[in-house]
Amino acid sequence: MAKPKQIIRPEDITICESTQQMISKARRDGVELFFDRAEELKPCPIGADSACCKHCSMGPCRMNPTDPYKRVGVCGASIDTIATRNFGRMVAAGTAAHTDHGMAMLELFRGVIEGTITDFQIKDHLKLGEVAASLDIETDGREIKEIAADVYRELEKTYTQVEGEIPLVKRVPAKTLETWRREGIVPRGAMREIMEMMHRTAIGVDQDYENLTKQISRTALADGWGGSMVSTDISDILFGTPSPVEITVDMGVLKEDQVNIIVHGHEPNLLEAMMVSTAAPSLQQMAAEAGAKGINLVGMCCSGLEVLSRHGIPHAGNFSSTEAALVTGAVDAMTVDIQCIKQDLHKVAGCYDTVFVTTNYRAKIEGAQHIELDEHDPLKCTDEIVIKAISRFKNRSHPIEIPRRVGRGVHGFSHEYIKYMLGGSFRGGYEPLNDNIINGRIRGVAGVVGCTNPRSKQDFSHVELVKELIKNDVLVVQTGCSQVALAKAGLTTPGAAALAGAGLAEVCETVGIPPVLGLGSCVDNSRILMAVAEMVKTGGLGESIADLPVAGCAPEWMSEKAIAIGQYFVASGVFTVFGHTFPITRETKFEKLLFEGLASKGLGSWGFADDPYEMARLMLAHIDKKRQALGIDTARERVLVDMDARRGLAANE
Amino acid sequence: MAKPKQIIRPEDITICESTQQMISKARRDGVELFFDRAEELKPCPIGADSACCKHCSMGPCRMNPTDPYKRVGVCGASIDTIATRNFGRMVAAGTAAHTDHGMAMLELFRGVIEGTITDFQIKDHLKLGEVAASLDIETDGREIKEIAADVYRELEKTYTQVEGEIPLVKRVPAKTLETWRREGIVPRGAMREIMEMMHRTAIGVDQDYENLTKQISRTALADGWGGSMVSTDISDILFGTPSPVEITVDMGVLKEDQVNIIVHGHEPNLLEAMMVSTAAPSLQQMAAEAGAKGINLVGMCCSGLEVLSRHGIPHAGNFSSTEAALVTGAVDAMTVDIQCIKQDLHKVAGCYDTVFVTTNYRAKIEGAQHIELDEHDPLKCTDEIVIKAISRFKNRSHPIEIPRRVGRGVHGFSHEYIKYMLGGSFRGGYEPLNDNIINGRIRGVAGVVGCTNPRSKQDFSHVELVKELIKNDVLVVQTGCSQVALAKAGLTTPGAAALAGAGLAEVCETVGIPPVLGLGSCVDNSRILMAVAEMVKTGGLGESIADLPVAGCAPEWMSEKAIAIGQYFVASGVFTVFGHTFPITRETKFEKLLFEGLASKGLGSWGFADDPYEMARLMLAHIDKKRQALGIDTARERVLVDMDARRGLAANE
Repeated sequence: MAKPKQIIRPEDITICESTQQMISKARRDGVELFFDRAEELKPCPIGADSACCKHCSMGPCRMNPTDPYKRVGVCGASIDTIATRNFGRMVAAGTAAHTDHGMAMLELFRGVIEGTITDFQIKDHLKLGEVAASLDIETDGREIKEIAADVYRELEKTYTQVEGEIPLVKRVPAKTLETWRREGIVPRGAMREIMEMMHRTAIGVDQDYENLTKQISRTALADGWGGSMVSTDISDILFGTPSPVEITVDMGVLKEDQVNIIVHGHEPNLLEAMMVSTAAPSLQQMAAEAGAKGINLVGMCCSGLEVLSRHGIPHAGNFSSTEAALVTGAVDAMTVDIQCIKQDLHKVAGCYDTVFVTTNYRAKIEGAQHIELDEHDPLKCTDEIVIKAISRFKNRSHPIEIPRRVGRGVHGFSHEYIKYMLGGSFRGGYEPLNDNIINGRIRGVAGVVGCTNPRSKQDFSHVELVKELIKNDVLVVQTGCSQVALAKAGLTTPGAAALAGAGLAEVCETVGIPPVLGLGSCVDNSRILMAVAEMVKTGGLGESIADLPVAGCAPEWMSEKAIAIGQYFVASGVFTVFGHTFPITRETKFEKLLFEGLASKGLGSWGFADDPYEMARLMLAHIDKKRQALGIDTARERVLVDMDARRGLAANE
Repeated sequence: MAKPKQIIRPEDITICESTQQMISKARRDGVELFFDRAEELKPCPIGADSACCKHCSMGPCRMNPTDPYKRVGVCGASIDTIATRNFGRMVAAGTAAHTDHGMAMLELFRGVIEGTITDFQIKDHLKLGEVAASLDIETDGREIKEIAADVYRELEKTYTQVEGEIPLVKRVPAKTLETWRREGIVPRGAMREIMEMMHRTAIGVDQDYENLTKQISRTALADGWGGSMVSTDISDILFGTPSPVEITVDMGVLKEDQVNIIVHGHEPNLLEAMMVSTAAPSLQQMAAEAGAKGINLVGMCCSGLEVLSRHGIPHAGNFSSTEAALVTGAVDAMTVDIQCIKQDLHKVAGCYDTVFVTTNYRAKIEGAQHIELDEHDPLKCTDEIVIKAISRFKNRSHPIEIPRRVGRGVHGFSHEYIKYMLGGSFRGGYEPLNDNIINGRIRGVAGVVGCTNPRSKQDFSHVELVKELIKNDVLVVQTGCSQVALAKAGLTTPGAAALAGAGLAEVCETVGIPPVLGLGSCVDNSRILMAVAEMVKTGGLGESIADLPVAGCAPEWMSEKAIAIGQYFVASGVFTVFGHTFPITRETKFEKLLFEGLASKGLGSWGFADDPYEMARLMLAHIDKKRQALGIDTARERVLVDMDARRGLAANE
């Protein structure tokens, strides 16, 4: 007799109660979700350990992960060559994703400067000036468009430069940059690094895992300090640099009596255009005539986080909840652009007659409706989608069940705002942060970021890890889907300081901030790089990023982008822990290099842990080790500089 | 009782008798070759059919190739999405390999122009002028270095240009280019296309196999008409455009009484520098003092083919023979640069105390000696290797067994030379070729190119296919390892015309050429593109490349580069057959698109066959179909234009 199929309980799949509720509804509705497939489809055990190489047609060659040095590939490639190649291609793909996204932002920027695009403008002149200054571009007495044209030219180099160092390395702390130069990993243009990475991982090219790892670091740095950073800079210039804003998250932001439109993806322009369309009186009127109390624009995933941070647009959930949101039956249209769009969203949307539209030429879905967003006339696309959504609202034919949960928080902490909030506009700076780290109120800073993954209980590790960290006086900064998990759990409110250790709580209460700071989407991890660079430049915590008492973690990572991000943090000097799986074969030289060897060269290192408590332990241990090396391992009061001493300092300047 | 291990007979592994002999010797010597591993290590049956996706950590997801639509990946990716993604990444990697190679040539060129590199020079002024003219660069009355600097700037765009069409599409026949524009596949810079290809194949981006295939074509075209073509152009400018030269191939070119140095790889500069070092009187003297009768410089693989074509340097064999050559015991040094360098060459060299040296920073091998070739002082590297080789010669301690076979042929047929040879310097042109195709003496032209692969009997399909083609009056052009197979078999001699059909034989005898023309290394497939473009422009054979009675084949392909090359031929309009395996799942929509759909859009199409006779049948059928469409399917005399008619034509001009 066949064993009855084990049905996993929703509460074992996710801690997000809204998603649990929708999993149950989907089961009743007979709709398959990706959680179901994750259960049925076992990951290839050889591929998961990166012990297979399919880079030529002599293979695919499969190694034995439990006895990794037993054999080599047909060409002689060792397990270290194979795993490093695979890792390199993940970094190339992740870097390509961020760089191509940044390139799209640059093209938008170019169109705005040249006047061919008129629906978007240069909104944040202050940020433009700061970016220009950081690139040594003269701003005094010059027209905005002149400055912008120069900024464009410099930032384009970040992608196209075939030799030398990209302009943005000017932002890297001197000693960190010195380490990169010694190691030969200062990036040229991101497109060049991606190309070379792809070449060197082909059959019969680089077969020295240490040499390959240098190119992996170089490529990843071209992402963090290049591809991603340009994307963040331009998005801020065009759409405004975020500053703290009260927000709502979770499926409860959907409204039964309104036309619900979800925008999911990564490039902010689709959502920015949709904000204009949904606010248009004519379309509002059309919605009213269809019996709706309004048009409810909601974000999901990373572009959702950009408009959440900038404008407080509500957010319905992270990557693992995108199908679940459709299961409510309340979504009249879901429209997507690029990255992390599951192919089956189209099918799930079909089950509920939700209008599902792809909008970017780079990311279509077979069979799905495509209405291209043309930056020269963006409202043509978004208006059409709104009209279709209204029509679906009018003809709603599926029972609606919207989970009641709504999380609240304060998000939008750009690194510029952190600077401001710590000192005010007169004396903004990272001194108060550094001071509180030195005096021990804050033990260190942790970035908790990244995806969710159906192979890991949704949100669980994010939330538990962050709770552990703040309890231990570690200030947490966040980007991407992780941030949504914490917002749903209520940890991004100032009140969450109550869950923090006494030192951190004191700082949070004094400044009036949550212990968990949302910084934006996954390209906005570049904000964390800028923040750690500021910490080094401010002084008192060592000379390079590797000296800082900081650590990073992506507990439930899923995308190749996460690997690129992890590697650029590691290469920048940050100890970075990944959870639930790590794409290498254990007990190999390559593992040793990533987990120990890189740190010995002055970079950061990777860590891995299966559960959030172990992740926290690893991160705290690293932070404590760095505090010890800095001589600040015992909490102490910093000697205050009095007026006499200040006069002395001024005299020495 | 365990079944005794089946030992495959050397004659079933390869038709190359030298390699057979060395396989036997390796077995006696107890040395493992990659042929042995190909036998032992079965390719992953799911991966070989491209039915697995490891582009995120929700997987790797394995589909069932025998029931491809039974399931989808965790994210919902269909078999078509998955196989197209994999195919796209192969094209990205292949394009990256050629582009990075071309970039290295460009950097060399830049150094020569700027005067920082003095050991290489602009050797072929004629080619420089032709390249400049093709890019609309003024040459009249200008200094060589001025022209060169402009050529550099234009060619760099071929890699870096972020929008618009690359300059080299000026070489594409108008109607072919029109088709590309209609399909949206005219390439921007190769680095941009590679980046976008990597992005679009990541989780949750492009999930429409038809849309993805457009980017695959665009990326491949950036290789053929960009990355590879620049590489060929610059190599010709710096080292000379090949013209016919008598050559020797096979392991018999090794000499027992001389210091044997093999150079294996892809970039010509290492071999060009090695030519200088091995000719240096001081090193010749050193070799003589060590008891050697000289220093014998021998090429293998593609850089070997470049110097074979340009200077008649002997060639010891193709990809599958590189280990076997070491087994002779006669190789004193093997030095390598990039691509197709098996990792285990280092180990096999160690078994015979052969000096094994990597020379390029992008391609080290774990544990192998690395002496970097610095273009600013290339002889420092090559002199040192020669000295090490002499020392190994002096201390030879292994029995030597050199197969006696030496093949002879005439190679070095650049597309420029083909033009010249067909009409002489006064009225050079492709008219005689087109005329003879129109009149039916020549049925069509076939490119037979590409790798060898231990999963396919070495050289067998190359040789049998070419014999079938020439017997049927098809002129064969060749690049890469395929060419070496035919040279070993004696088919690149003018005398081989005896094996050709009567029509082709007549043409070969009249012009004095072999029926099989070697055009160079694998980046030199761009020469074939230029040749087919010339055929279209010359007239009488249709308006686009897709109209020509031509076909291509890589019967024993191995590298991702081959897939990129195949795709750029297909996207250019050429029917292209691959042998022994094809990295897709059969009976899928993606298969139908590649094998039929692209042709219906005015591009070429893919074909697949397992044996060389079927490959020939497919290619001949295609050529005949195109002849029929052109109305030249019955052999006929072309009406000759007499002097009266000529005067009339001139009057109309």
